[in-house]
Amino acid sequence: MSLEIIAENRCFDGRQLRVRHAATATQCDMTFAVFLPPKATTANVPVLYWLSGLTCTDENFTQKAGAQRYAAEAGIAIVAPDTSPRGDDVPDDPEGAYDFGKGAGFYVDATQAPWATHYRMYSYVTDELPNVIASEFPIARERASISGHSMGGHGALTIGLRHPDIYRSVSAFSPIVAPTQVPWGEKALGNYLGADRDAWRAHDACALVEAGKRTGNILIDQGEADDFLTNQLKPELFKNTCAEAGQNLTLRRQPGYDHSYFFIASFIGDHIGYHARALNAG
Amino acid sequence: MSLEIIAENRCFDGRQLRVRHAATATQCDMTFAVFLPPKATTANVPVLYWLSGLTCTDENFTQKAGAQRYAAEAGIAIVAPDTSPRGDDVPDDPEGAYDFGKGAGFYVDATQAPWATHYRMYSYVTDELPNVIASEFPIARERASISGHSMGGHGALTIGLRHPDIYRSVSAFSPIVAPTQVPWGEKALGNYLGADRDAWRAHDACALVEAGKRTGNILIDQGEADDFLTNQLKPELFKNTCAEAGQNLTLRRQPGYDHSYFFIASFIGDHIGYHARALNAG
Repeated sequence: MSLEIIAENRCFDGRQLRVRHAATATQCDMTFAVFLPPKATTANVPVLYWLSGLTCTDENFTQKAGAQRYAAEAGIAIVAPDTSPRGDDVPDDPEGAYDFGKGAGFYVDATQAPWATHYRMYSYVTDELPNVIASEFPIARERASISGHSMGGHGALTIGLRHPDIYRSVSAFSPIVAPTQVPWGEKALGNYLGADRDAWRAHDACALVEAGKRTGNILIDQGEADDFLTNQLKPELFKNTCAEAGQNLTLRRQPGYDHSYFFIASFIGDHIGYHARALNAG
Repeated sequence: MSLEIIAENRCFDGRQLRVRHAATATQCDMTFAVFLPPKATTANVPVLYWLSGLTCTDENFTQKAGAQRYAAEAGIAIVAPDTSPRGDDVPDDPEGAYDFGKGAGFYVDATQAPWATHYRMYSYVTDELPNVIASEFPIARERASISGHSMGGHGALTIGLRHPDIYRSVSAFSPIVAPTQVPWGEKALGNYLGADRDAWRAHDACALVEAGKRTGNILIDQGEADDFLTNQLKPELFKNTCAEAGQNLTLRRQPGYDHSYFFIASFIGDHIGYHARALNAG
């Protein structure tokens, strides 16, 4: 496989890379970010996958979360993929909306035309990308965890619940916990997966827990001043579902915090510490 | 005076604000950022002024430096102004170059047409903005320090050297230390201040030290992989000048680091610690 390093910056004595490659899953060039902590020069290190939210690329988290300091200290790599396929050949929302199409892959494998060819972010994130990472970087692939924000929090929860064998720990900021029940999710899942709502349940964290999927403890931070709290995020749905099903969940509601990266930056250290305990546990 | 808060985000239990006001010095609306640490809810806090580099606005430092964590811990406010006047009435580089005009005010008061009306960033930063801050926010104005990056490092050094009574400590990342001797500075100072190079020396850190200006210790971090190191920045000129003149200087050359905010993020904690010692010294 051929990887192109399109940017490299030294950061907290580690390496912050942007990498482009021709992806099989999405049938297009994909760009992702990798932060390699200083420890990666002498050992294979654990890896935290970060899934970003609507409108983001690989760069938002890299530039705005301030995560490198904590990852460098903990000796953990961070991989942040793009949020959708990209390129002139990739179809987009016909009206250019921010919540579907490019920048809004929702971490599913689309089954419907014209989306099914390229919009295969589930396979990309869970299969192709980890293979690329493991073969090209000093990563201990059996030590992986997953986190994300908003649409990416949805991705982290659903992927983590479906693959507890792969991801040792799961966390999210402001996640869409029940996409089958809110406008963002209904639009995206309806278009990518078709009208049959039963097919959507494999990509809905609440439905997965109801169906018996389990992972270790889940950590969620949710800002109480988040503009999307009551109409798109609805963390109480997941809290209730987890309580009824016996899925461990730490849901922290943070007064005054909104949906922005200023919120993520304020608590990413806690999340990296949480993942580091699972990843460095041996 | 009328201030408009155009954005507010909670961050590390403090308040990150974007503020717009009609500025007298620059005869246009100006936007600046203020981070107020948690301590500002109960006391007047010291303030660090941050001056940004070419092409930046008030937002780059706020979003990318990760400074809020350290400022929250130290109980220090950070004020980050824009880098030039803005607006349709403000003249810009006739060829739209990045290194002159909008986004490139160079922290001088222009004397030449058509720049002299609006391009008065020196007066704005040293006089009008501190007055606004002191009157509108819980700031202990007698406890101020100054820092910046690249063009903003030039601003911090020159302003700090000229006003040791106002700024208790001075630092810079990758500063333009001798604008009278490098292309960025020759273009900007020539256009803003005219052909008489003697007039430029009041805005050249090396020339100011040569002329007898002094401040307390100065801290500079400079990346050794900085693309602008040898043609625009030339830190050795300042090092030699300070050594000959007896101006205290701590110049740290950081191997592998470039000109980006990944570099700033890696060491901003050290700078805030350095300023906190001066600002909290009583």
